Amino acid sequence: MNVVIVGMGIIGGSFAKAIKKYTNHTVIGINRSEAPLNEALAVGAIDKIGTELDLENADLIILCTFPNAAINFIKENAVYIKKHCVVTDAAGIKSKICPTMVKLARENNFIFVGSHPMAGKEKNGFGVSDADLFLGASYIIVPCEAPRYAVNVLYHLALQLGFGGIRITTPEEHDKMIAFTSQLPHALACAYVLSPSCPNHNGFSAGSYRDVSRVANINAQLWSELFLENKEPLLDELGTLIENLTQIKNSIELNDEDKLRNILKRGKAVKEALGE
Amino acid sequence: MNVVIVGMGIIGGSFAKAIKKYTNHTVIGINRSEAPLNEALAVGAIDKIGTELDLENADLIILCTFPNAAINFIKENAVYIKKHCVVTDAAGIKSKICPTMVKLARENNFIFVGSHPMAGKEKNGFGVSDADLFLGASYIIVPCEAPRYAVNVLYHLALQLGFGGIRITTPEEHDKMIAFTSQLPHALACAYVLSPSCPNHNGFSAGSYRDVSRVANINAQLWSELFLENKEPLLDELGTLIENLTQIKNSIELNDEDKLRNILKRGKAVKEALGE
Repeated sequence: MNVVIVGMGIIGGSFAKAIKKYTNHTVIGINRSEAPLNEALAVGAIDKIGTELDLENADLIILCTFPNAAINFIKENAVYIKKHCVVTDAAGIKSKICPTMVKLARENNFIFVGSHPMAGKEKNGFGVSDADLFLGASYIIVPCEAPRYAVNVLYHLALQLGFGGIRITTPEEHDKMIAFTSQLPHALACAYVLSPSCPNHNGFSAGSYRDVSRVANINAQLWSELFLENKEPLLDELGTLIENLTQIKNSIELNDEDKLRNILKRGKAVKEALGE
Repeated sequence: MNVVIVGMGIIGGSFAKAIKKYTNHTVIGINRSEAPLNEALAVGAIDKIGTELDLENADLIILCTFPNAAINFIKENAVYIKKHCVVTDAAGIKSKICPTMVKLARENNFIFVGSHPMAGKEKNGFGVSDADLFLGASYIIVPCEAPRYAVNVLYHLALQLGFGGIRITTPEEHDKMIAFTSQLPHALACAYVLSPSCPNHNGFSAGSYRDVSRVANINAQLWSELFLENKEPLLDELGTLIENLTQIKNSIELNDEDKLRNILKRGKAVKEALGE
């Protein structure tokens, strides 16, 4: 296949490197700025730097930009995309993107299959991209209205790149679950480190501080966008978490040891039932 | 030294194994039930199973039980402890324990130095104890009124056992910091996994779910006790966290992207300033 990757950050760069390492596909890179493209070419992560004209020969286009930039790229370049080309994204939200992309796909005769590689690092940019970033990670495919063969293109590629589990779901289910598994921990990490105690933690902290605070080193622009585009599910999760924390706080305030112990026991039971 | 360890759970067992591995001290184990003592003796973690009479020859007593059990043990056995013996604990809170212990020490001519090894696992009991549990971990010493030489006994031992950083502080500072670095993440982990979404997370989760939820597999009895004995500092931290989460929630509700991005940026700035 001719694979065009749009956006040479950590995700796009890792897709490029992984495809070169684990498949025989040709990889063409497109990026707003030139520096990451030159670097990608120099290290062999891409076979060439692409232009709009390369879209005409692309079998697969992987959009690895911010969500809104992905939509704008397709709006501006849809006319170049060849018939039946499979277009996918890598965005952390799906309900807002998928209908727009499906409409663009129908109007321009390409096929959109949403997807979300559940991988990343605390740092961004091509410099931290890694051919093995996806090993063992989850890959979520959101077919929308795409035909089976197009879904299979992504499914097969994900297996080749070493993803550890591939899940096929709807945009709504994806966004509801991501609000809990990914967005809430990111919101939480920022809320946590904003405690006035945080700057003095050194010497008093162990694994639990490190784990909760880890993802506070956030791309504020990207995550603000993701949070607002997944408003309702994230508000639900934030509301539930605040309510649960308030229950714990109230039981401590009232010295209600039975209630407190029961809340903690219920938490433990959830983890145990999951075998974690 | 003759070292008596009271409580053969994960912490007491790890102290026993580490002292045998890294020093030439004699280790005597005391425990409410017999099974862990027999196991400890069988694997060479202790030199003998102790009785009250062994307290008469102890140079160092390390209390590795729940906080209230540690106080009760000393109340019942203080008469057996030899003059100038150094007694320490391993409890996660200090303000409630230290004054009682200091009073008992003064009345009975032993020396109390509070301490807190910042290490643990998600599982408990002698079976998961480990001679290398403390390698690189923080060790917090709370001298209360103890003389310098007694503090040095613990300081030197901590270095031998491989602790990575030793901090000397007051009970109040200890409890304030622990509320943030340890108790809050444990409360948080339980509050987080009680979301109705949690049981379905598989296939949608990555590192951030794993990290926040990790310590939800909690000893509910121990942590209820710890939370209630550190009431005010923990209520402060819970209040701050709930307030910060509410700010994030409100900014999403109002589509206030500037406010949301600023909160996330402030979180990122805290982590960056700490070099994390």
